[in-house]
Amino acid sequence: MTETPRDIEHLIDLMARLPGLGPRSARRAVLLLLKKRGSVMEPLARAMAQVAQSARECTICGNIGAGEICAICADPARETGEICVVEDVADLWAMERGGAFKGRYHVLGGTLSPLDAVGPDELRIPELLTRVQQEGQREVILALNATVDGQTTAHYIAEALEPSGVEVSSLARGVPVGGELDYLDDGTIGAALRARRKL
Amino acid sequence: MTETPRDIEHLIDLMARLPGLGPRSARRAVLLLLKKRGSVMEPLARAMAQVAQSARECTICGNIGAGEICAICADPARETGEICVVEDVADLWAMERGGAFKGRYHVLGGTLSPLDAVGPDELRIPELLTRVQQEGQREVILALNATVDGQTTAHYIAEALEPSGVEVSSLARGVPVGGELDYLDDGTIGAALRARRKL
Repeated sequence: MTETPRDIEHLIDLMARLPGLGPRSARRAVLLLLKKRGSVMEPLARAMAQVAQSARECTICGNIGAGEICAICADPARETGEICVVEDVADLWAMERGGAFKGRYHVLGGTLSPLDAVGPDELRIPELLTRVQQEGQREVILALNATVDGQTTAHYIAEALEPSGVEVSSLARGVPVGGELDYLDDGTIGAALRARRKL
Repeated sequence: MTETPRDIEHLIDLMARLPGLGPRSARRAVLLLLKKRGSVMEPLARAMAQVAQSARECTICGNIGAGEICAICADPARETGEICVVEDVADLWAMERGGAFKGRYHVLGGTLSPLDAVGPDELRIPELLTRVQQEGQREVILALNATVDGQTTAHYIAEALEPSGVEVSSLARGVPVGGELDYLDDGTIGAALRARRKL
């Protein structure tokens, strides 16, 4: 007896699986799509089908690009001898938005998590070790999240890289730009104090 | 120099136009889509293309359905002599979820709004008048939002329907089910008091 046609209901269900959308906002989104069929819905359906068809993981670094090898790995200017290890593609994009890093990346695809049965072989850690050996990198920068899982993974990788002799570093901890001490947690303030620099 | 491939960036831009998603959450949504290409992205792209292609406005009531005439208008059991006038399809769906109304609908497609140059002819008000005349409805229930625009529209329609002699009613104002007086605005409490009923 429900009125919504079945294919619209199906579309709402699928939209509701996206992060940031629940059943109610998915319904609103679909209504907007229905209102703007020509200007939003059709282009969106096309763009999505297009990306679903063309996007694939770079076989070298795990980044998502249009071909076998992503634009960063294909760019000779980025062969700086530095690899930046990130948890997932979102972090790679965040690093690229900053624009401060000029080298190449390695996307792990997650963090070690014994409870979820995620070991080194579930991540792209063996590939990282092979890359460092074969490509003769100078430095591996661990840009993992400052969470317990992120730091466990960082330590594991640092240890696994020790025999190769490559330099291993990690992002600095400290007060974020624009941050106010009053709102920072004790751990960050402590880390910023220990890593204080001479003016 | 930005890394995100152009078609993914385009998809993020389109997703960011959806209500409830901004640029940042659109990016997160697209990343999830990329991770779940087979299980979410492809079905979603297909469902969207399918709905964009099949969905259309019912020529009688303005509801969105799969054919010329929506399932409600096509259902003879819903010929009760009552038409429920709603602002848009979302409101029709909300009424249907409640399941209390057994008649047919009329979707206006908005509310009168002189400032935005929305007059009666921009809405489906002439169609409503024709329907009431031709179909010989008994009652028109105005289920418009309790906003200034909604109520202006309701009064305009009530006046326009006066010559036809049809009964015109509107949804009751009062305390919502589960509502606590302490949290209600004065207007609602006043309306509920004026419309009080004998126990």
